[in-house]
Amino acid sequence: MGLAAGDGRLAIGPGDDAAVWELDGRALAITTDSLVERVDFLRSFQTPWEVGLKAWGAAASDLAAMGFGVEFGVACLICSPDTFEGTVLDIQEGMVEGARRDGALLAGGDVSSTDGPLAIAVTVVGSGPAGQAVRLGGAVPGDAVAVTGRLGGASAALRLLERGAVPPEAWRRRLVAPVPRLAEGRRLRAAGAHAMTDLSDGLLLDAARLAAASSCRLELWADHLPLEHRLEHFFPGGSLQLGAGGGEDYELLVCLPEPVARQLSSASKGTGISVVGRVREGEGVRLLERPEGPDVALPAQGFRHF
Amino acid sequence: MGLAAGDGRLAIGPGDDAAVWELDGRALAITTDSLVERVDFLRSFQTPWEVGLKAWGAAASDLAAMGFGVEFGVACLICSPDTFEGTVLDIQEGMVEGARRDGALLAGGDVSSTDGPLAIAVTVVGSGPAGQAVRLGGAVPGDAVAVTGRLGGASAALRLLERGAVPPEAWRRRLVAPVPRLAEGRRLRAAGAHAMTDLSDGLLLDAARLAAASSCRLELWADHLPLEHRLEHFFPGGSLQLGAGGGEDYELLVCLPEPVARQLSSASKGTGISVVGRVREGEGVRLLERPEGPDVALPAQGFRHF
Repeated sequence: MGLAAGDGRLAIGPGDDAAVWELDGRALAITTDSLVERVDFLRSFQTPWEVGLKAWGAAASDLAAMGFGVEFGVACLICSPDTFEGTVLDIQEGMVEGARRDGALLAGGDVSSTDGPLAIAVTVVGSGPAGQAVRLGGAVPGDAVAVTGRLGGASAALRLLERGAVPPEAWRRRLVAPVPRLAEGRRLRAAGAHAMTDLSDGLLLDAARLAAASSCRLELWADHLPLEHRLEHFFPGGSLQLGAGGGEDYELLVCLPEPVARQLSSASKGTGISVVGRVREGEGVRLLERPEGPDVALPAQGFRHF
Repeated sequence: MGLAAGDGRLAIGPGDDAAVWELDGRALAITTDSLVERVDFLRSFQTPWEVGLKAWGAAASDLAAMGFGVEFGVACLICSPDTFEGTVLDIQEGMVEGARRDGALLAGGDVSSTDGPLAIAVTVVGSGPAGQAVRLGGAVPGDAVAVTGRLGGASAALRLLERGAVPPEAWRRRLVAPVPRLAEGRRLRAAGAHAMTDLSDGLLLDAARLAAASSCRLELWADHLPLEHRLEHFFPGGSLQLGAGGGEDYELLVCLPEPVARQLSSASKGTGISVVGRVREGEGVRLLERPEGPDVALPAQGFRHF
């Protein structure tokens, strides 16, 4: 959202994954995110409880991308005429479950009505050490580009559901109940990450945003992308498209010094990171078949509306 | 919103005007509020800029009701298909103007789309001294009941607009651009207010909520209500209904020790407060014609959907 510039009270203002201000040596971060029925979810594909869980997780993921924890959240639930009381309670329970999983509390909220589709807006507040939030615009040429976890599961699940097929449960969970990478985000911050964001709109789009904020080019290597296993089996010839272009994986994309990246990617503890490219002088994103290889032609694609 | 109980991390949990947590000797408060087109506003009655200003003000008003200031806000803007870019910018400008007026910053936000009506969810964070937030449930028998400002202007403006008439501009502004009583809220907190809430749903409904949270009865005196001047002229015989039952005035309803109330109501500085009743043992709200007078029969009424 294009907002008025800060006036020094904000350490990080509009345009990053979250806004950050500092208070007595601590940094506090706030971010807000909405899910709208028929745009961001379909009730035929996920239960109200899962909708609540996803609404919480998508908001918390923006704090993970700062390298911060999440402490409190509040939610506006805007109910369509066909939203019954039990549905409201299930959505709330899903948000409470997400908060519990992440060591946070759902602190309050507001229930209102609309004659349109159901919508949920979740705002989360978290904290971290002052001056250490990982920005979107901190990448420098020479940095390694890395991602957490595996890519493409959420969008593969969505494609299969749209065809009336039953996706592997692990992929369906990626879509309907993504887990924000809070521990990984903190670990990457502590390790000295230069720039970070979460993968909500798809690797290529989110990488382009990070590149623009950092005034650099991100070079990505297709053969290094940690695609979900069996993606090529379900989508012959289409796995790269899903992994690089599909959204909603809610993994982290991070730029960090190469030696650090090598060390973290070989560590066996926690969700691993994979080095998938390098930061270069220039602008935009280039997807190469492999390091020093030719460009891959992929139709631009990111988050798909239903 | 009926939420999971806190676990000690929240000084004030779900159910009050805002949730409060404490950090290094300061208290931080967070609250969220939404405006939905055709439920909470009509674009034929107010400009997008005014919609943004009202969305900000309605959220900030909940912090005023804690006796706190407002420091930062974030907004989710969920756009209907007929929401053009200029409309989005105007709504944002309205929110920025509200933040500026209140000494706060709009720190970030999220713009998404819906096939239903336009909706705006604003979350604000503010702070105050630890342990001093004014709760909804702190009234005690013997307290005076008081309100800031004048009542009935917002709902009178709405009635006139619905008839195609032109309301006095001061009333129209009450409806489309309410000013949160932040300075008054802080003053009332510092003066030792026991319980406070903002008048969003109408005096009778909001008083009933405060009475229930405080396990007391609120006795209100019709002849003491500070109705907007000229209300009876525009609505012969209907002014009390509008002043006591109409919503969206965004004044403060406060319960405080009687000597303090008398002192504040006779002070000439700032928005005055008017003593309008007394806290009694019991439950619910009673509206009397005058102190010790007979009950007034009023149809129950509060916030009206369009």
